[in-house]
Amino acid sequence: MKVGFVGLGSMGHAMAGRLLKGGHEVVVTNRTRAKADDLLAQGAVFAETPAEVARQVEIVFSMLFDDASTEEVVFGEHGIASGLAPGAIHACSSTLSLAQARRLKDGHAERGQVYVSAAVLGRPPAAQAGELFVIAAGQEDALSRLRPLFGCFGQRVFEMGQDPLQANLAKLSLNFMIFSTIEQMAEVFAINEKAGTDPHRIFDLMTGSFYNAPVHRNYGKLMVDHEYDNPGAPVTLGLKDVEMFLKAGGEQGVPLPYASIVRDRFLGAISAGDADRDFVVLLERVRQDGGLK
Amino acid sequence: MKVGFVGLGSMGHAMAGRLLKGGHEVVVTNRTRAKADDLLAQGAVFAETPAEVARQVEIVFSMLFDDASTEEVVFGEHGIASGLAPGAIHACSSTLSLAQARRLKDGHAERGQVYVSAAVLGRPPAAQAGELFVIAAGQEDALSRLRPLFGCFGQRVFEMGQDPLQANLAKLSLNFMIFSTIEQMAEVFAINEKAGTDPHRIFDLMTGSFYNAPVHRNYGKLMVDHEYDNPGAPVTLGLKDVEMFLKAGGEQGVPLPYASIVRDRFLGAISAGDADRDFVVLLERVRQDGGLK
Amino acid sequence: MKVGFVGLGSMGHAMAGRLLKGGHEVVVTNRTRAKADDLLAQGAVFAETPAEVARQVEIVFSMLFDDASTEEVVFGEHGIASGLAPGAIHACSSTLSLAQARRLKDGHAERGQVYVSAAVLGRPPAAQAGELFVIAAGQEDALSRLRPLFGCFGQRVFEMGQDPLQANLAKLSLNFMIFSTIEQMAEVFAINEKAGTDPHRIFDLMTGSFYNAPVHRNYGKLMVDHEYDNPGAPVTLGLKDVEMFLKAGGEQGVPLPYASIVRDRFLGAISAGDADRDFVVLLERVRQDGGLK
Amino acid sequence: MKVGFVGLGSMGHAMAGRLLKGGHEVVVTNRTRAKADDLLAQGAVFAETPAEVARQVEIVFSMLFDDASTEEVVFGEHGIASGLAPGAIHACSSTLSLAQARRLKDGHAERGQVYVSAAVLGRPPAAQAGELFVIAAGQEDALSRLRPLFGCFGQRVFEMGQDPLQANLAKLSLNFMIFSTIEQMAEVFAINEKAGTDPHRIFDLMTGSFYNAPVHRNYGKLMVDHEYDNPGAPVTLGLKDVEMFLKAGGEQGVPLPYASIVRDRFLGAISAGDADRDFVVLLERVRQDGGLK
Repeated sequence: MKVGFVGLGSMGHAMAGRLLKGGHEVVVTNRTRAKADDLLAQGAVFAETPAEVARQVEIVFSMLFDDASTEEVVFGEHGIASGLAPGAIHACSSTLSLAQARRLKDGHAERGQVYVSAAVLGRPPAAQAGELFVIAAGQEDALSRLRPLFGCFGQRVFEMGQDPLQANLAKLSLNFMIFSTIEQMAEVFAINEKAGTDPHRIFDLMTGSFYNAPVHRNYGKLMVDHEYDNPGAPVTLGLKDVEMFLKAGGEQGVPLPYASIVRDRFLGAISAGDADRDFVVLLERVRQDGGLK
Repeated sequence: MKVGFVGLGSMGHAMAGRLLKGGHEVVVTNRTRAKADDLLAQGAVFAETPAEVARQVEIVFSMLFDDASTEEVVFGEHGIASGLAPGAIHACSSTLSLAQARRLKDGHAERGQVYVSAAVLGRPPAAQAGELFVIAAGQEDALSRLRPLFGCFGQRVFEMGQDPLQANLAKLSLNFMIFSTIEQMAEVFAINEKAGTDPHRIFDLMTGSFYNAPVHRNYGKLMVDHEYDNPGAPVTLGLKDVEMFLKAGGEQGVPLPYASIVRDRFLGAISAGDADRDFVVLLERVRQDGGLK
Repeated sequence: MKVGFVGLGSMGHAMAGRLLKGGHEVVVTNRTRAKADDLLAQGAVFAETPAEVARQVEIVFSMLFDDASTEEVVFGEHGIASGLAPGAIHACSSTLSLAQARRLKDGHAERGQVYVSAAVLGRPPAAQAGELFVIAAGQEDALSRLRPLFGCFGQRVFEMGQDPLQANLAKLSLNFMIFSTIEQMAEVFAINEKAGTDPHRIFDLMTGSFYNAPVHRNYGKLMVDHEYDNPGAPVTLGLKDVEMFLKAGGEQGVPLPYASIVRDRFLGAISAGDADRDFVVLLERVRQDGGLK
Repeated sequence: MKVGFVGLGSMGHAMAGRLLKGGHEVVVTNRTRAKADDLLAQGAVFAETPAEVARQVEIVFSMLFDDASTEEVVFGEHGIASGLAPGAIHACSSTLSLAQARRLKDGHAERGQVYVSAAVLGRPPAAQAGELFVIAAGQEDALSRLRPLFGCFGQRVFEMGQDPLQANLAKLSLNFMIFSTIEQMAEVFAINEKAGTDPHRIFDLMTGSFYNAPVHRNYGKLMVDHEYDNPGAPVTLGLKDVEMFLKAGGEQGVPLPYASIVRDRFLGAISAGDADRDFVVLLERVRQDGGLK
């Protein structure tokens, strides 16, 4: 199948590469053309603008950094929406606010185009290995056309429903689970440290017993090692995500007290000068409150 | 080795049985003698009182329901402390407040006896299979004598330090992790349900991706199935545990905001008439706040 | 002096009337012209658009409903900014987000105009009596020109600083104090009601002793009387205000946990069907949590 | 009338003095006899023990520091309960937990004695001036006998109901209102300070407009002046009080989220080394979170 891919950051690049490996023709574009070079060497075709990509395919994926870049790439001049044919699909993998997702849904619908949310869980190496988790939502016929493509980069697809926003919300929810697990572990590490127990022992106890999910192992390890300065994702990104989740709570009328506490921790981290450190530095706010240097 | 065991509820009974199977002579007692019958058939010896048990052994285990029952069995008339020889060990597996643990530590120390905290994670079937996790803390020489015994009922022993209270606190901490994971999942289930997504799909997404620890699988399943009426542990027990954790936070000077929120949910559950239902019914408080019936 | 006034809702109307009574020439405009009738009878002059108002004066006041209406009236077609001369002043009394206030500040500055924030505390009857409290911030020379005008409708002027946003933030802060006092009183009323004490007795105790500010007397009375259905301001307005305050906290990097709790109560109220009732209905969320009907 | 008074700290001493001034015969006792000297000079009679006091009167007041001292003075050897005749009244003005109040109620009832809760609001100078606020609850006939005596030291009596615990709870509630007003003001002072506004200006705005109760004026002033080191009441006392309130919430099944946040602030203050400073130092926790030194 001939598909488009817009946005070749490390995640998008890996996903587009998997589509190529899956035997698909892939038309790509990116603000910085050089990032496409090796994909072109593997057979991808470069187009000058998102609109150019969209004009050539019936399915275009996008993977952008945030709401603003997605808005620009979709509805800006030479954006996806201006090139996509009626009936064609835009499958967007960016982590978006519900408000932005709604703009995609409505904006494409006005043009007779179809928006599918295809959020992904996992980091670039997982994308390269085709081991992402895909969280998808949209019209059933669009999903059925996308499933084989999802299989190129995803080890498993979780379908949330027919409204694309359901996948956007599910993605925000799972990101929240990272943050709230960090807060939870931070409270536990801090009180035990204050009582004289090395947090590494608590970490071993957690991950050696019933709290051994990747979310515990990966973030817990960074926390007990105080590995803050080689950020997988910085505090500012965590704050952006939890604020989108809280905003979703506002739209849905669902109070989310754990999310509010995480937001406060991230604000405190920023005010403490830790904006650009890994968001597990949230632990330091809990330690500070507990009088641990 | 000859060891004592006081408290033959379902956990204590299973643990004592494992000690017997491990080839040890076990002297037991229990308020209701009938609960000891099959252990006696397997070779255990019954003593009339905790003191009688203690007088016959150098190591006595106990597994009681709470602070009050532990206080009574240890320091009451004919209690363990009155029978235990100087230098002998009381290894207590009950989930206790730090205040009660301190009374055990100090009370035994005054008598030249040794208190070891040997909290356990797991349910009775795990105990029967010798697959508990043991959280231990106490003097090194006492721990070294206890290790082979822990191996009878525990698949793994986690040692926290030389002060027995370190194990009590670690145990309270891990129980808190159950509750806070439930609150975390409840917020996620509720907001997605409000947005039209079946929580079972969210559960599959969590446990099919990075949130697949037993704490997610076991409690999450009960939650999405609204399985409240066959309680593994009721709200009242959850409340007792989280209040002990909060009290520990007070003693250590560590604010624990996630724990406070859980306490409020449990109070709300009790006021809603759910005191005796499984503590995952906390989900209903979150749903109620979100306007979901 | 000749001054302009844009926005003749009940507050704006009263403020413009006070300026007239103070002997000033007042040029007014309003979407609905009829609301200006009695002011015209008292000597005010009507202009067709905000720009028309601004062209005739060196000082224009505005009092609009929210961010969006202010944005439209100031920077929209025929807006204030398009009519105001360089060096002229726009004194805005609307309750705005910091983001909107910043747009006013920057947008006027680009045109060589001066934005002053002149938020007010009090209700329309106080405005009619010239008994508002004015919270002002802006350049000193602009403030000095405005002071005599503030005196027409305000019993007292509180100046926050030279950056207009300081007054916007102070206004959001004082609104937050209403909400957080309501939550505080709600917790007190609910627990005492649960214990069998009529909340009216608690109200008398509060207001008869050390908690006798207008914020206690006015809102507390509505609460104990369950006067929800004749709203001074509805839950939706409270939610809008507390979300602006929380957003300000985000911009300043200051966690505001009490504000987060109020937001959650308002969300709960909306989900419970109380969106349009007086925001003191927050009490019902606290009562509900406590098992009081 | 002949009345007893046990506990001559600064509050008790002033209250007993007012009873004397009111023309009553007063029998007093105190651990440190010297504190009674000037009362004896005014005609009071000293008794060696609380029981001795109780034996001579039909009404005995007490004003002790806390639960423990009250328990000792009432039910300890030579305690009030051992001297009080059946039908006689113990009017206790201490700030007590509900659990302790219940012990007084039940313990006196077993002996045919009557416990009345007669909590007071105000500081020693107000007591000396007879300007306390009295919060009373108990059996109607007991209250009717006490009213003239309350009038000696109180400017106004607020009666809560026939169960003495109602007054204990009301007193805890009003103390909570101090703390939660401090947290509320702290959030406001901190965010405005971060935005460049001198908190004194915010204080003037609050107290010059609708937030002008004594609770705002007295504590707000200490806060903006950073007057932490001449404590009216230290953090430890605030913590004790808010924990009693939270415990009452637990007994009544009423979640009190604002109280939990105050508790966390006080714990943080203690861990920061501020245990013995005035409890308005809570402001420093909010400032710290906001990155204000």
